[in-house]
Amino acid sequence: MISKATLKFVHSLKQKKFRLQNKAFVAEGNKLVPELLNSRIRLRSIFATEEGLREYRALLPQSGAEIVSVSKSEMQRLSFLKSPRDLLAVCEIPEESNALPESGRWSFYLDDIRDPGNLGTIVRTADWFGITRIFCSADTAELYNPKVVQASMGSIARVGLVRTPFGEIPDTVPRYAAMMKGMPFSDLGKCPPGLIVIGNEGRGISADIAAQCRAFTIPGRGGAESLNAAVAAGIVMAFLQNPC
Amino acid sequence: MISKATLKFVHSLKQKKFRLQNKAFVAEGNKLVPELLNSRIRLRSIFATEEGLREYRALLPQSGAEIVSVSKSEMQRLSFLKSPRDLLAVCEIPEESNALPESGRWSFYLDDIRDPGNLGTIVRTADWFGITRIFCSADTAELYNPKVVQASMGSIARVGLVRTPFGEIPDTVPRYAAMMKGMPFSDLGKCPPGLIVIGNEGRGISADIAAQCRAFTIPGRGGAESLNAAVAAGIVMAFLQNPC
Repeated sequence: MISKATLKFVHSLKQKKFRLQNKAFVAEGNKLVPELLNSRIRLRSIFATEEGLREYRALLPQSGAEIVSVSKSEMQRLSFLKSPRDLLAVCEIPEESNALPESGRWSFYLDDIRDPGNLGTIVRTADWFGITRIFCSADTAELYNPKVVQASMGSIARVGLVRTPFGEIPDTVPRYAAMMKGMPFSDLGKCPPGLIVIGNEGRGISADIAAQCRAFTIPGRGGAESLNAAVAAGIVMAFLQNPC
Repeated sequence: MISKATLKFVHSLKQKKFRLQNKAFVAEGNKLVPELLNSRIRLRSIFATEEGLREYRALLPQSGAEIVSVSKSEMQRLSFLKSPRDLLAVCEIPEESNALPESGRWSFYLDDIRDPGNLGTIVRTADWFGITRIFCSADTAELYNPKVVQASMGSIARVGLVRTPFGEIPDTVPRYAAMMKGMPFSDLGKCPPGLIVIGNEGRGISADIAAQCRAFTIPGRGGAESLNAAVAAGIVMAFLQNPC
């Protein structure tokens, strides 16, 4: 049995305000929750159906989390998903490092990526390429927004998002911005490593940031007005790991 | 004033069955609808609010479509979107060519891409790189599904989706499949041009198709289990247009 208070608490975590206040977020799924065990994310409570308890009986006790047995209908009430699964965890928002981008190595900066699906895909792509830290502006979506958590498919276990005002980045770090016009992205291979800025889905990169960056572009020849931000980030990440 | 019958007809186009039966689909938005004018897509009816009529008064009469003036509240009832815009069009599903992939040139085949957002992003990315035709399996999402239409951001005006059973592709066309293991994608530059197969979001490429393809991979070194299908397609498209 879960109490009304528990139900209310879990649902409050849909809202940023309560996530920040409680330093907690929700992750759901029979793949995602086990993936978060033994990761940088600490799980406070795991709600599990009978099936979930049975299938993951070897894993769950190791988690250090409170394990709460729930019925299928209780899970339905707890879940944020249309099709609830057997495991739902309340996790702790980890302290992010306050590292800054460095010269001499490639890193990424997200300038107001607001779409949770895009952010989740970028985090998953970064994880694929072994990038463990992404820098971003204050207005970029939250990593622990339920939609980002689900879209990242477990990559939040390995990738952190560091909110860094652009002005705090050391002057010595070379900056490159993905724009409509500029040098072809393949020329990045000849440039000193530094920070790659990926802009907002709708309006691109803010003018003040763009003015501080060298522009590069992903040459196209078709009719689309722009590339999706996650696709653009993926192309650059793939290129930097597999340069010509 | 719009009739109940019109409202019912427009809403029926949310369903594949009625789209196919009526050879019609819905596109919405103050950018999307004008982009479809003068494209390969024929517009049957354009529903426009007073603002829409005023802002696009130069464009709309050229469309050859029936122009229907609607109030804001009527638009709210017609629209499939949470935030309706000033223009909604009922468009004709164009006849797709029955072309087949050819040897000597690169083309793409989608094996059961079912997520409309992913398909829309792939279509938009193809459009960016000037690809006007994508081949796909029977179970790939429909191009004229409202979510694909909106996610493609106008690229359906320039990119067609051709449903082709894999068995009908001429034996002479070299086939390459994006897999977890295989030659690095940059080796595609040394291979004879042919068909690139991108697999389903969850289960990858069907075994029978994979068995007929040479496997390539996008080398990663992190923890993510896979790349998003649209990101993977974008990386390969970018590479083939900007080979080393």
